[in-house]
Amino acid sequence: MLRQYTEVASKITKKGLVEQQAFAMLKELTGTIGHRLSGSPQASKAVAWGKDMMLKFGFDSVHLEAVSVPHWVRGKNERASILVGKVKTPLAVCALGGSIATPKKGIIAEVIEVHSLEEVKNLGDRAKGKIIFYNRPMDPTKVMTFEAYGGAVDQRGQGAIEAAKVGAVAALVRSMTLAIDDVPHTGAMRYVEGGPKIPAAAVSTVGANALSDVLKSGKKIRVLLTLNCETLPDVESANVVGEIRGSEKPNEVIVIGGHLDSWDKGDGAHDDGAGSVQSMEALRLLKELGLKPKRTIRCVLFMNEENGLRGGKAYAATKHSPDEKHIAAIETDAGGFAPLGFGVTADSAVFEKFKSFSGALEAIGADRIRKGGGGADISALGAESIPLIGLMVESQRYFDYHHSNNDTIDKVNPRELELGAIALAIFSFEISEEGL
Amino acid sequence: MLRQYTEVASKITKKGLVEQQAFAMLKELTGTIGHRLSGSPQASKAVAWGKDMMLKFGFDSVHLEAVSVPHWVRGKNERASILVGKVKTPLAVCALGGSIATPKKGIIAEVIEVHSLEEVKNLGDRAKGKIIFYNRPMDPTKVMTFEAYGGAVDQRGQGAIEAAKVGAVAALVRSMTLAIDDVPHTGAMRYVEGGPKIPAAAVSTVGANALSDVLKSGKKIRVLLTLNCETLPDVESANVVGEIRGSEKPNEVIVIGGHLDSWDKGDGAHDDGAGSVQSMEALRLLKELGLKPKRTIRCVLFMNEENGLRGGKAYAATKHSPDEKHIAAIETDAGGFAPLGFGVTADSAVFEKFKSFSGALEAIGADRIRKGGGGADISALGAESIPLIGLMVESQRYFDYHHSNNDTIDKVNPRELELGAIALAIFSFEISEEGL
Repeated sequence: MLRQYTEVASKITKKGLVEQQAFAMLKELTGTIGHRLSGSPQASKAVAWGKDMMLKFGFDSVHLEAVSVPHWVRGKNERASILVGKVKTPLAVCALGGSIATPKKGIIAEVIEVHSLEEVKNLGDRAKGKIIFYNRPMDPTKVMTFEAYGGAVDQRGQGAIEAAKVGAVAALVRSMTLAIDDVPHTGAMRYVEGGPKIPAAAVSTVGANALSDVLKSGKKIRVLLTLNCETLPDVESANVVGEIRGSEKPNEVIVIGGHLDSWDKGDGAHDDGAGSVQSMEALRLLKELGLKPKRTIRCVLFMNEENGLRGGKAYAATKHSPDEKHIAAIETDAGGFAPLGFGVTADSAVFEKFKSFSGALEAIGADRIRKGGGGADISALGAESIPLIGLMVESQRYFDYHHSNNDTIDKVNPRELELGAIALAIFSFEISEEGL
Repeated sequence: MLRQYTEVASKITKKGLVEQQAFAMLKELTGTIGHRLSGSPQASKAVAWGKDMMLKFGFDSVHLEAVSVPHWVRGKNERASILVGKVKTPLAVCALGGSIATPKKGIIAEVIEVHSLEEVKNLGDRAKGKIIFYNRPMDPTKVMTFEAYGGAVDQRGQGAIEAAKVGAVAALVRSMTLAIDDVPHTGAMRYVEGGPKIPAAAVSTVGANALSDVLKSGKKIRVLLTLNCETLPDVESANVVGEIRGSEKPNEVIVIGGHLDSWDKGDGAHDDGAGSVQSMEALRLLKELGLKPKRTIRCVLFMNEENGLRGGKAYAATKHSPDEKHIAAIETDAGGFAPLGFGVTADSAVFEKFKSFSGALEAIGADRIRKGGGGADISALGAESIPLIGLMVESQRYFDYHHSNNDTIDKVNPRELELGAIALAIFSFEISEEGL
């Protein structure tokens, strides 16, 4: 039944690999705008840039959808040191996103190393006045790096909450990466509404290992931590939306999206500049090849995935037209690496149908259709009980770069990036033609 | 039947990903020895290093097998320029392996751009005294980069032969890469025995594009090419061989191999330091886990794959014991990238059997068993009609680095490299237990 799509797939693939516009866009985004944390001037520029790009490509009904976003800003001179007697050894740190500042002169305190939130709960009085140092590494035995990340990231997200509860004065968290280097990786952390707040920072894996070693030595050590970040009032921002309107069933919509915001480290090249440009590139390929999808394929560049998810929520809450119905949503937010296939959260019948689409993805090596998948930005659409889909890519390198100064365009291979866009174009086109 | 191997595979995977010894070895090889062209002092050091490594790991019957290898050396000051009137623009070039030198002062000649060997044959007298510039790019529409390479590399291998036949004075060849940068990529070229010889060099893709542009301008241009390479007498070198002796059928041998030599550009990290360390690592993992294969699994570090294949031929010609029989040979020479599976050249029954082994490779994403595969070093073993197998890896980045100064260890991800070694360990163990 689906053999006809292999020919379409071949056209899409050839055009994509020759033109490599995903990389050209990413070069422009990272080169002229750089990182783009929600609320920043760069995020605002990125919104305008995304809209211009979609207009240039001639997508239908290109528009912005307003979203109010948090505005957290990193301080200019955040730093930390290990103090052993009079010897001061610098530690590579960066504030976690959302953290409060330390006092201007910083916090000096003894350090307790822990490996879980549970361990902190049991510290009791011993934690008072101390810095809690979360040092459980991502599990290297997990082949899927996202699984290793999922198994460690509670320390970053909730570490400050648990540490504050037992009277600690700050939290230091081992960077969420499998690489051993001296680059700290930021990321979201939370406080309990109305609860106590203490500053929280990520420390590089080299720094974490050094700190752990010196703690094992039994010497009396302290850490000096200075953070000068702050949270400013919310800012008006936007999701960028453009589509190719369906020729037969325009009210049935397939969303392809990535997030336009990034952390304020590196250039957000893989996370998620890659997904943003891939989403646009997928539509560009379909449009310029004159493929007229039966159903609407819509590109959404979501705002504020990293520290609020407000774009994803706002999009899901918006009624775009009276009779519009989403039939699937695909997110690309795992880095611009070689695509392997799609992870699908859907009922069995739909899953099997999507699986039957894989033939057209075989030639680009992206024919693995696996159960389970989606993405943060599209998760709110799950309330509509539609299939949620995530582009699966080769994941080994992602966390080497993620949320850090390493996330720059030189880590992106133009062909791997483009193949992801090609996979999105092929798969979304098949869904648009076949429906659910 | 083969379910039991998933448990073994899991043990191998965990040990490999925690210890990451493939990367540790590669760091040592590239860091202390660097590149290692056949006949060079570094190649000799690499042979000793490989043997030491195998002895250290306690492999059975570690030994060297002598191979006489060619000894071509690059000159110190190879260079080229485009001359337009009095303006001299440098071109990034490097001699192709095996090329003769130019006269000391270089060759100055007009340039004819061509896109195929066929085109050169038809040039006739117009080619006399000219430099032939082969500028057919690797085809970017090929998803498999090895296919794109295969479709362009005749220009490098035979370009000088065809150019010499029509009276040209030198050959310039567009570098075999899909990247557009200013780094030339070397590689093997040939002459006809007793035929005319002209110097041949690779030019970077940026240089090739610039040269092509200036030729299109219609200006009278010449190129100055200076190469000072030479071929010295053959040198005694060796393959490095070590094994885990089979517990039940020691005379049935499965070879795992990569090549220890490299080109004299970069550090030969991906090509084929990666395959060399993966082959050793596969055996180390099996041995240290106490897995006693029924059949012998032998690691061979082949010498001289790049410019002669003498190691592969010598190994195949050696009778290692009166009743020894190779039952399969696996080569890893496609770079230390994430493994996807194995390409198998074998009859249908054996192919189907190997395919049934893929379950144990699923957890590491290396479960694609495809028809066709092998490797240059093991090709001579094909005379024994045994299954020839190649480790398939994600191939998009390989030719960005291949045979150039870009091929350094910073381009290798420790986990991707290790996963390749793990795939080799699992697959070779399954073959050793199940036989053909």
